[in-house]
Amino acid sequence: MRKIHIIGLGLLGGSFGLGARQKFPEISITGHDSNPQNLKDALTLGIITEAKETPDADTDLVILATPADTLGELLLQTLDQVGENTLIFDVGSTKAKLCALMAGHPKRRQYLAAHPIAGTEYSGPKAAFADLLDRKVMIICELEKTDLHLKEKAYKLFDALNLKLRFMDPEEHDRHLAFVSHLSHASSFMLGQTVLQKMKDDKNIFDMAGSGFASTVRLAKSSPAMWAPIFVENKENVLAALDGYIQNLTDFRNKIAADDTKGLYDEMAEINKIRDILDLGK
Amino acid sequence: MRKIHIIGLGLLGGSFGLGARQKFPEISITGHDSNPQNLKDALTLGIITEAKETPDADTDLVILATPADTLGELLLQTLDQVGENTLIFDVGSTKAKLCALMAGHPKRRQYLAAHPIAGTEYSGPKAAFADLLDRKVMIICELEKTDLHLKEKAYKLFDALNLKLRFMDPEEHDRHLAFVSHLSHASSFMLGQTVLQKMKDDKNIFDMAGSGFASTVRLAKSSPAMWAPIFVENKENVLAALDGYIQNLTDFRNKIAADDTKGLYDEMAEINKIRDILDLGK
Repeated sequence: MRKIHIIGLGLLGGSFGLGARQKFPEISITGHDSNPQNLKDALTLGIITEAKETPDADTDLVILATPADTLGELLLQTLDQVGENTLIFDVGSTKAKLCALMAGHPKRRQYLAAHPIAGTEYSGPKAAFADLLDRKVMIICELEKTDLHLKEKAYKLFDALNLKLRFMDPEEHDRHLAFVSHLSHASSFMLGQTVLQKMKDDKNIFDMAGSGFASTVRLAKSSPAMWAPIFVENKENVLAALDGYIQNLTDFRNKIAADDTKGLYDEMAEINKIRDILDLGK
Repeated sequence: MRKIHIIGLGLLGGSFGLGARQKFPEISITGHDSNPQNLKDALTLGIITEAKETPDADTDLVILATPADTLGELLLQTLDQVGENTLIFDVGSTKAKLCALMAGHPKRRQYLAAHPIAGTEYSGPKAAFADLLDRKVMIICELEKTDLHLKEKAYKLFDALNLKLRFMDPEEHDRHLAFVSHLSHASSFMLGQTVLQKMKDDKNIFDMAGSGFASTVRLAKSSPAMWAPIFVENKENVLAALDGYIQNLTDFRNKIAADDTKGLYDEMAEINKIRDILDLGK
């Protein structure tokens, strides 16, 4: 492996660049970002060794790390630019639409549908760090549709970065992520919204460390440019998750309104089982 | 100050005990918990030096740290047991009902309405630690209704524990906490509920580190015995907060349903201002 090209040099693309440079210092890492400041920062921070709008035809790996709603067109375009020994993978948070788009594409075997479960509430190249992906889960979809030899190039990088591979159908991925990740972000953003609205009338703010608010609202600092497209791209599943959530909140508020302390206790005691779920993957 | 008595030896009562013993090793700290195992653990862990059901009449400070719906009766009862040089303070998460209950009470000046903004998602004496209260905010309500000299006993302890005092009306406290703390807990419990329900059909769990879920659902591990009474005791404010939250979630889901990427982007960009709010107290 001699050449990697990264399109989209934000938190995730940037962390792939920094991680790859650390593990394979001899490799040439080129890249592009449509935001000139991001591109400049990526060069300064050493995320890429050279700015280049399109990958060389003999690039080994191309990583697509732009917002979810731009990946389809970018993938088609990039497949046209590369030679037959290039593997392209994307790191988008939704997978079903991309896999459907690629079904039957003459270069389907040069594409790997991937999604690393890694991120922070910060964004842009300055938020990137080499260890972001260390020991995180990397979900791969439609593994069998990618060329065996080309896939090895991606695996070499994934192994070096300590990613733990998991395999899923794209539909299963999108359904699962809607509940686990996308719903968490929506709930956190709306928590922030509700408190901000209240604070318009009620300015008495104090240090909220310890209140539970800071950790619950953390994801509301996330990038709108990343998240707005995810919610729309995964609309069907996100709406199912949100509707279930709103129903649960409504039932819970009705128990409070009815002074049903025992009902609230029983429900929360049942939900405490989430401890086991959180430990399952460990 | 020679004697402290603590009723309720869980996370908060236990941490007051451990903190007080560390700062004032010469003081006698007695205490009680209606759960025999908690009482035994509190002795083993050194939270109290002696188990005692009621405080001695010459106790300097009594700390009430039981669930929110038990505090009113316990406070009235304890005021009957202590001499005139004892100050009693509670650490409950709701303050308006207690202050209303105490209005006009002949021993009103021996009571201080307090609420430390400190906790973790764990509960019981084993979850207690001496530094839990270090540099946390301690809200005091109706400060002027407490005897000046007796108050000094509490301040001596609060200062030693590095608590930062803030003063509020009890109604303002309950309104504010409903939005900042109680809503966070409800939103986190219902997030846990929604994901647990989904997982009944969909068993494919993976390590969710990095998905944002773990931090957002953390508070769903909290104690139902503590939280069910808080929601009911602060019903009016909690319902206002929950109704605002449900409305915001509904508006957000409708933007997603309408493919309104720009509307979602604009709303989330506005909510990103929560960063400044979170930094305000610092």
